[in-house]
Amino acid sequence: MAENKNTDSIEVWRTFLETWKVWKKGVDRNLQTMGLGSTEYSILRHLFEDGKMPMVQMANLIMVTPGWITGLIDTMEKNGLVKRVRNTEDRRIIDLVITEAGIHLFKKAKSHHTEYIAMSLEKMNAESLSRLKVLLDDLKDSIVETCSIKADE
Amino acid sequence: MAENKNTDSIEVWRTFLETWKVWKKGVDRNLQTMGLGSTEYSILRHLFEDGKMPMVQMANLIMVTPGWITGLIDTMEKNGLVKRVRNTEDRRIIDLVITEAGIHLFKKAKSHHTEYIAMSLEKMNAESLSRLKVLLDDLKDSIVETCSIKADE
Repeated sequence: MAENKNTDSIEVWRTFLETWKVWKKGVDRNLQTMGLGSTEYSILRHLFEDGKMPMVQMANLIMVTPGWITGLIDTMEKNGLVKRVRNTEDRRIIDLVITEAGIHLFKKAKSHHTEYIAMSLEKMNAESLSRLKVLLDDLKDSIVETCSIKADE
Repeated sequence: MAENKNTDSIEVWRTFLETWKVWKKGVDRNLQTMGLGSTEYSILRHLFEDGKMPMVQMANLIMVTPGWITGLIDTMEKNGLVKRVRNTEDRRIIDLVITEAGIHLFKKAKSHHTEYIAMSLEKMNAESLSRLKVLLDDLKDSIVETCSIKADE
């Protein structure tokens, strides 16, 4: 019985992982047609939705190392999508800010991305989708509760 | 109505992405206690289950660039987990092979990983798990069918 539970669990994990791989690939390709990597898209989204924030906080949010994000931000700044601004309250802190051009590209990419996601789910009916959403929430809760990992860590 | 469908879809995507992030973090931390990164674990798993294969094929399987995998394989070879062997039929091809030490570590890591996955799903009952598995399969099929992405591409 314990053996069976283990087998089922690992099958769920493997299916989840395979699904992630194809979805991620599709999302990446779709954003690439707008000239954006998916990490760059996430950076624009966070800056647009949550406002300016320090580099370190952004690196945590998108789960990359501070070293890795620096190069990416350099490129995005050169392309006029974001800029670095000294924090007015604590001048040791450098904040990231989205520019007007960044907002413009983000809005276009967002609608493109939303359309892609809707299309990728076309073969599923509304009931399956809402069930899936509930089960994914349960799954996330189970992972967080059993392994003491914070969702926003 | 079309607007609603879009909203639901993007919510499913966001929940999926958030779930992936916490699960991936948990899996990585757990494998790290065995001294393995999750990519190294995948490499060992593919070599153990599918036998030797060329570097390029492995890079495709685990979705990294050939340049990136070279550095990783260098480290794994230095640690005695894999080795590079010239293909006997086509001597221009270098195959990757898992070593005895690699097999030993993989088996230990696999049971550790399987236990972690089972634990992370502890809060879900058997019915929810099997439903989730079915819905994830449907999701994967929908993505592959609508976006012409192959699951093993």
